[in-house]
Amino acid sequence: MIQKLTEIRCADAPPPGGHYAQAVLHRDTLYVSGQLGVTGDTPDAELVSIADQVAFALSNIEAIAHVVGAAKEDVIRCTIYVPNVEHWGDVNRAYAAFFDTHRPARSIVPSGSLHYGALVEIEAVVAVS
Amino acid sequence: MIQKLTEIRCADAPPPGGHYAQAVLHRDTLYVSGQLGVTGDTPDAELVSIADQVAFALSNIEAIAHVVGAAKEDVIRCTIYVPNVEHWGDVNRAYAAFFDTHRPARSIVPSGSLHYGALVEIEAVVAVS
Amino acid sequence: MIQKLTEIRCADAPPPGGHYAQAVLHRDTLYVSGQLGVTGDTPDAELVSIADQVAFALSNIEAIAHVVGAAKEDVIRCTIYVPNVEHWGDVNRAYAAFFDTHRPARSIVPSGSLHYGALVEIEAVVAVS
Repeated sequence: MIQKLTEIRCADAPPPGGHYAQAVLHRDTLYVSGQLGVTGDTPDAELVSIADQVAFALSNIEAIAHVVGAAKEDVIRCTIYVPNVEHWGDVNRAYAAFFDTHRPARSIVPSGSLHYGALVEIEAVVAVS
Repeated sequence: MIQKLTEIRCADAPPPGGHYAQAVLHRDTLYVSGQLGVTGDTPDAELVSIADQVAFALSNIEAIAHVVGAAKEDVIRCTIYVPNVEHWGDVNRAYAAFFDTHRPARSIVPSGSLHYGALVEIEAVVAVS
Repeated sequence: MIQKLTEIRCADAPPPGGHYAQAVLHRDTLYVSGQLGVTGDTPDAELVSIADQVAFALSNIEAIAHVVGAAKEDVIRCTIYVPNVEHWGDVNRAYAAFFDTHRPARSIVPSGSLHYGALVEIEAVVAVS
């Protein structure tokens, strides 16, 4: 093993709730752990709309990307886990509002019930210059 | 942000049905969005067999890879989402028929019901020279 | 297509049960296929605890990484599929015990029922020097 991986810590996103880093940097690619749609300032996930959860989760990814100098336009791919596929339209709208003209590669994956009853979880791969 | 990501457009695969690019290129790696087993020429997904849906989804990935000069032998990894794990054998057979001697890394993920009632969705990571 | 991908074979992890390589190497990144928590020496997955299944799956990933000279400290990201999200705590504990001070990026994805009735499946991205 060579010490080539950098574990990222970001005070502007929720601290890890388990044994993982918020993100890990490998050369010019940042792998961001699954982010829920919660912030330190918001109530429980179950009290927040799906649109807001998408916005919060993406803002968490953006904050983590900022730590290594990347922006939301540098997001290469998002994988979006949603327990209820009926939320597809709401997820897509909130996601489009966040990314504006930037369109990462994306998969929306219907999952089982998420931890804490969250309505959405989003992980990302980000390009770092 | 530096303009280093290239959003890929491919006329030979279904146009995006939401806010995403069919694929995004980051240096020598192409990230292909989840592809359903439909084409512009085929009927609704629900009328197509699981084997054909696998073949169509993989053909869509291949067509998108062609845009950046890559071939199916350049597929590094596929993640296959299937709502019904009883389809595992059919998926594996159709997948093997498509890739022949090439064996990408792979995970078959039992998911919830997919958008449009699709029986399979496949995303991929592809090597670009 | 240029022959740039290397399919990895590892005798110390279960042989592929379908049309996939245990892992594929692309430049300095190793993509490991989803690993179940079984080994050639263990009984059926359904007889093994969730904690042991996590440990076995991660040991399989480690063995595969060794083939290209990587160690568990080189794991960049794990995606963990669990059919029963109530296992979250047990998964996290067994995962922490395995990785010790190393904390890869991670998502725990509640999935449908896994192949062979497995309680967990783990895929990984690994850095290779």
